[in-house]
Amino acid sequence: MPVSALATDLYQLTMIAGYLHTGRHRLRATFELFTRRLPPHRNCLVFAGLDQALDYLQDLRFGADEVAWLAELPVFRDAPAGFFEYLRSFRFTGDVWAMAEGTPFVPNEPVLRVSAPLAEAQLVETALLAILNFQTTIASKALRLVDAAGNRPVMDFGARRAHGIDAALYAARAAYLAGCTSTSFVDAGRRFGIPLSGTMAHSWILAAETERQAFVDYADLFGARTVLLLDTYDVAAAAEVVVGSGLKPLAVRVDSGDLLSLARQVRKILDDGKLSATEIIVSGDLDEWKIRSLVAAGAPIDTYAVGTALATSEDAPAMSGVYKLVEAEGPNGMRPVFKRSAGKSTRPGAKQVWRVLDRGAAVKDVVALVTEPPPDGGDALLQPVMRMGTRLAESPALADLRAGCAERIAMMPRSIRELERNDDYKVEERIPNP
Amino acid sequence: MPVSALATDLYQLTMIAGYLHTGRHRLRATFELFTRRLPPHRNCLVFAGLDQALDYLQDLRFGADEVAWLAELPVFRDAPAGFFEYLRSFRFTGDVWAMAEGTPFVPNEPVLRVSAPLAEAQLVETALLAILNFQTTIASKALRLVDAAGNRPVMDFGARRAHGIDAALYAARAAYLAGCTSTSFVDAGRRFGIPLSGTMAHSWILAAETERQAFVDYADLFGARTVLLLDTYDVAAAAEVVVGSGLKPLAVRVDSGDLLSLARQVRKILDDGKLSATEIIVSGDLDEWKIRSLVAAGAPIDTYAVGTALATSEDAPAMSGVYKLVEAEGPNGMRPVFKRSAGKSTRPGAKQVWRVLDRGAAVKDVVALVTEPPPDGGDALLQPVMRMGTRLAESPALADLRAGCAERIAMMPRSIRELERNDDYKVEERIPNP
Repeated sequence: MPVSALATDLYQLTMIAGYLHTGRHRLRATFELFTRRLPPHRNCLVFAGLDQALDYLQDLRFGADEVAWLAELPVFRDAPAGFFEYLRSFRFTGDVWAMAEGTPFVPNEPVLRVSAPLAEAQLVETALLAILNFQTTIASKALRLVDAAGNRPVMDFGARRAHGIDAALYAARAAYLAGCTSTSFVDAGRRFGIPLSGTMAHSWILAAETERQAFVDYADLFGARTVLLLDTYDVAAAAEVVVGSGLKPLAVRVDSGDLLSLARQVRKILDDGKLSATEIIVSGDLDEWKIRSLVAAGAPIDTYAVGTALATSEDAPAMSGVYKLVEAEGPNGMRPVFKRSAGKSTRPGAKQVWRVLDRGAAVKDVVALVTEPPPDGGDALLQPVMRMGTRLAESPALADLRAGCAERIAMMPRSIRELERNDDYKVEERIPNP
Repeated sequence: MPVSALATDLYQLTMIAGYLHTGRHRLRATFELFTRRLPPHRNCLVFAGLDQALDYLQDLRFGADEVAWLAELPVFRDAPAGFFEYLRSFRFTGDVWAMAEGTPFVPNEPVLRVSAPLAEAQLVETALLAILNFQTTIASKALRLVDAAGNRPVMDFGARRAHGIDAALYAARAAYLAGCTSTSFVDAGRRFGIPLSGTMAHSWILAAETERQAFVDYADLFGARTVLLLDTYDVAAAAEVVVGSGLKPLAVRVDSGDLLSLARQVRKILDDGKLSATEIIVSGDLDEWKIRSLVAAGAPIDTYAVGTALATSEDAPAMSGVYKLVEAEGPNGMRPVFKRSAGKSTRPGAKQVWRVLDRGAAVKDVVALVTEPPPDGGDALLQPVMRMGTRLAESPALADLRAGCAERIAMMPRSIRELERNDDYKVEERIPNP
């Protein structure tokens, strides 16, 4: 379902009225989307959400009823002639350059550049930021969780704590893009082909006469796919029930308590019961720090399932992504522009981001004006993705984006994945902060 | 647009298959939605999102294509006869009791109770939690911001940092419910009748030849509604431009820098320029602590606009809302059930929450089994809102819910709105934690 054209801030519409009033609405403008700083602890962010952003731009229309509603707002009482007609026939006709989804990036690097008539480029700011800030935030968090887990799978179990139904869907997408192996959210499986995983809830156990019966009933139906939840009453006792019942579940899950000690107890009970092939999944308020500590302790845990920390990026639920005018058409052609606000100044001019590679390994990034020559060994991260309002390629398969993300991450120095800030990766900015 | 029936966790569907397999799907079950603890700093939460939750329940259907897709999943290869037919004809036929939106509550108080056939009550867990956890989180944050601002308006400017487009919409709704005065997000104005507010972006200034021209052009169009943004270059200089141009804007906005000192400078320049009626709006990474400090310093600020902190509840982006089985039908009728998981145990039996009032002021809450007599002066917070899958009332107007929220907040002791944790408000739990 297309995003409403009213999914924007009021000032975008009042400015469009103003641009029409002053005749500037068709002047060409270039905006860049970037972040000024990294959220706490992060050494990079992972760009995500482009596919939804391009769909939004390509499908953007005002419904007749939406324009009629706007026309009743007092703020538009004196709107210039043609404002409502402009909205009725509105299309996004701009060009867009962007990084590939799954590209790691750092502050002051544009991840997306829009060149369009001023009024069009202005309208889309709010939705572009909401879509891209959110998915990028989650993908960046997912990278940390996946990295902390080493080569063990990380499942997304966060739907119930996501910021609504849509956020659950796109959080699952961003998490898988950045390396999570599956999601519990069924709609994300259907829409994006993400592998689904699930176990059972405590209610399954509670609704049965006994825990043993609950396990047996489930295994009877799901056979070799059975995953049993052990912590409804007592974890060790439940593990003994599994062994004693002669079940051979694919895995068991522990969702509370001291996960290290419980995983060790359960592992021993399963091994003693000839269930060495049965894996252990843990969940319950996990984050990258807890996972790292469990991995470091050699916990016999095969899979980590993460909810809240992942689906809300709990320690840093927002990134400071902004969308800023860097070039505007004036009487003498395009001119670079910038603001000087305290702590929030911008760098003028349309830019490219070069990732400088040495034998396949990224050694630094260079941010330079598009008119400057590329640095030696530089790979241009911003590529054209939309021309005159039309996408240049079909929606890519998420699995392909995920593979590309893994490749791009692998090219970066290990330090960008560290859980603590190190500021190791260098960016050379050829555009001095004016 | 209705929420997809696939907006659920996989295990809800595998459990439904299991309930069908064991013939338990039609047994009556009662689930309660509550939180075990408050997020950091909070002394209460504000219940929000019920209207969307009830719409979800009432409209819940599986599309034929959705069921066909599920039927292809390996996990359902051995699903019991009738599973897919059950989904195709699925309707939510349960009863729901809930607190009114805008009711302040504390841990271990059910805010919503579902009684339904087990399979139905199970399926809806994920979406109910996603909807209610999110809006409740934002409404609770909004209360803090509004309270910190005293009687000054707080505007929601957070759409671009919300967790996607839908989150922007519902964050605006929850914020207004809990006392914010307006939103910048146009779609929220249209759908919920929330007053809209907006100013201008830095790009409006940058796209013009001069800052003065940008101000004059805007005022020419918006007259007495004009709000001018002062911090594109230099705030004091911009304020002088406003005065020098003879404009009489409704307000000016400062979005960066030392807001206390800038507000004082701007106020003086405006007053000296006979613009005492022009108000000052501030924005820029505000939260309740910064607002409280500005208010305490006597900053001449008329309105606070809050983005990230509000739309993501940045310091606590999730609440630990859960949905737990408390009663299940067995061979001998309904029986209370509970789990004993470490730190995550539940209290058995269907409950009511009583707010005990003394001359209109809440003195404590009592959580008791529905079968127990009410305490003296007790007001029952859980009221029937849905019977056999049908809402008992139309969707209420948001403005009415907002007024009700203000009344309910006013009945509570001042301490529940304090920014630091005080654990002042008492809850008597008549159901011992087993």
